[in-house]
Order: sequence, then C-alpha cells, then structure tokens
Amino acid sequence: MINKQEDKISNAVIRRLPRYLRVLEELNKKGVVRISSGELSDLTGYTASQIRQDLNHFGGFGQQGYGYNIADLQKAIEGILGTDKQYNMVIVGCGRLGHAVANYIDSYESHYRICGIFDVKDELIGKEIAGVKVQHQRELEDLLAREKIDIGVITATKERAQSISGILVDGGVRGIWNFVPADIAVPDTVIVENIYIADSLHVLTYNMNHQNR
Amino acid sequence: MINKQEDKISNAVIRRLPRYLRVLEELNKKGVVRISSGELSDLTGYTASQIRQDLNHFGGFGQQGYGYNIADLQKAIEGILGTDKQYNMVIVGCGRLGHAVANYIDSYESHYRICGIFDVKDELIGKEIAGVKVQHQRELEDLLAREKIDIGVITATKERAQSISGILVDGGVRGIWNFVPADIAVPDTVIVENIYIADSLHVLTYNMNHQNR
Repeated sequence: MINKQEDKISNAVIRRLPRYLRVLEELNKKGVVRISSGELSDLTGYTASQIRQDLNHFGGFGQQGYGYNIADLQKAIEGILGTDKQYNMVIVGCGRLGHAVANYIDSYESHYRICGIFDVKDELIGKEIAGVKVQHQRELEDLLAREKIDIGVITATKERAQSISGILVDGGVRGIWNFVPADIAVPDTVIVENIYIADSLHVLTYNMNHQNR
Repeated sequence: MINKQEDKISNAVIRRLPRYLRVLEELNKKGVVRISSGELSDLTGYTASQIRQDLNHFGGFGQQGYGYNIADLQKAIEGILGTDKQYNMVIVGCGRLGHAVANYIDSYESHYRICGIFDVKDELIGKEIAGVKVQHQRELEDLLAREKIDIGVITATKERAQSISGILVDGGVRGIWNFVPADIAVPDTVIVENIYIADSLHVLTYNMNHQNR
C-alpha cells in the first residue's frame, strides 16, 4: 500500500503541477499576464512539448500564438490540486523537524490550518509554535473527535510513527503527510504521502558524479 | 537552468533508486538475502516490470527463478548513486529548518560530513548543532578556501539564497542542496537540487481529492 498512486499514468503529471504553480504564482505577483510554453520551459526546466502535453490533460488552456493566460492557468491548477480549498491539519511530533514544518505551513501555506500540535515530551507541552500551543499526545484523540481534521502530519520518531498513524486514521483524517523514514500501513481510504528528504540528497549526489564537464 | 537533469531519459529512473536503496537496506538489516521483483514491487509500490526495467539499466543483477541478491543490489545502487563515497558539506542558515537538516544528516547520513554550519544571527553563533559550532556567515569564504567542500546546503531565508549560492560556487562546491523556495542561478558546472516540501503536500491534497472510494 505504499504510494500506490505512482503507478497511475497521470501521477507523473500531477507531480509536475506544483512546480508549474510556483512559477505561475511568481509571474502573477510580478504582473505578467501571459506566457508561452517555451518560456514556461525555461522557467520550469521541462520541455515545451512536455508542458503542452501536461496542460492539455486538463482541457488545454493554451492558445496558439497567445500562450497561456497566467491567472487562468494558476486558478485551474489550484482547482485540480485542490489547493484552493481549506484543510485542517494536526502535527504530531514537535522536535526540530515538526517545529520547522509548523513554521513553514504557517508562513507559506495559508490554505492549511494548523489545529493542533502534539508531542510526548513534557518540556514541550504548553510551548507556543506557529501560534498554536503544544499539547500532550494523549489529547490527540479528543481533538480528532471534536474537530474535523483532514490531514495528519507525522514528524515524530520512527518508532512512534505507526501508532500515531493508527490514532490519526481512527480519528478520521483523510491524508497523512509522513516525514519519518518508515513505511506506514493504512487502510485504502487514507492517502499517505511520504517525504524522504534523503532521496533528494542522493539524487544530488548522483548528478554531481555524472555531470558532463 | 532549473533541474535540467529531469529532461534526461534516465532521470525518472535515478529518482526511484533511493527508494530501492531504503527498502534493500531494511531487508539487509533483517538478514534477508534475496528478493524477487514481485516482492520488491510490494515493498516499493512500483510494478514488477518497472523494477526489472529499472534495474536492467545497470547491468541486470537479477536471475530468473532466484531474484536479486540484496547485498549485491544494494552495493550496486550505492555505487551508481555515489553514496558509497564520503562528501564534505556546509549548511548555511541554522534556523529551525537548518537545525533539523543538520540533525537529520548527523543521525542518518553518515557519508555526509558536516564541516561547518553558518548563520548571520549573533544569538546563534557559537551554539553547537550536530557536534559542530555555528559560525558567522562571514567565515564561510575562509572555510571554503581552507577545506574541500563538495556540497552546500541552503536553509537560510529566501532573500539570502542567491548571494549564499554565489559564495558557495566561488568557494568550489560541486552541488547545492536548496531548501529555500527560490530558484537559484548557478554555472553549468554546479548541480542544484531543489527540495520544495510544499510540492509533496500539494500532491497529497490532490490524491485526497481524487481517490476512488
């Protein structure tokens, strides 16, 4: 049950959409109105034909000789990803990583509301992070019963990851964002997205060793 | 010049290797000696035919009816990725994210040696993180001149990212691991690997909204 989605044909496309979105947001902020697939290629690193193909999946917003309207395309991609809606989130584990993730969400991702932050360490309980007071993990079930939480973020230790995911699933979350290098078993109705930061480091290492100079 | 590598045919394969490696390491630790592509499929989420195709790129370590020897395959993938060698690293920016990354490297990635951690905030200078004393960023150039540093990690603010990358490039790093949501311009001889944690969150959001129940 590990990231089954990756086998779907469209998953590679979906994984490229957030990068398009970032580029479009930047352009929109700068007041740019439209862009060609060639210019998008320069900014994203994907080929122009790849870009046209990707964006055609979603109805083809481009017009020959005009290109893409940035605001429309941005709105369409947000709609596809679902990042135009609001999500309630809890973060479990507030060591340095949990702390960093909470601050990141608070600063950059306004569509995700942090409804609770949990840990088991006494010295962390009551501390305020990203405007939210850290609670003991034993309060997690109660909060999940009281509020509709969409996403559980796991930034705890490897050993606690599976039991936390059980509590989150029983509490009705629909998605788990897992930062812990451990595979988590969940029912099919719950989506797990694992983020392994070391994978990115290893790809960097590969590219350093295989570049043509 | 953003992640040009992604357009190479083999890049998708390369991005899957770290996951194979993680699974193989776990199996090796448990004393498992060999594995079939079907079992690898269950553990990685990739299809068995995808796995056979991927691993064939590197000389085909599998044997029909036997499967893959785990230790050999692990060693081969480490050799391909280059994670069997040692790399010197500096981390620039030691707020919560830099701190979390430093601890992560220190705990899990023994092939990457943290040779220096830098920030501009006076209150952080002299603090010990992952066994390394935080230095003022103005000391960075000196350290780069004195020691051969392979990888620079940028975990500073968005505003400082480009100037830090300039110092790192001038100081001879071959790779930059960038955590800051800003595109960094570097000469072609330097590899940049961007890690945007929000991209993963947006893919989770998409999958939550598009699963079949």
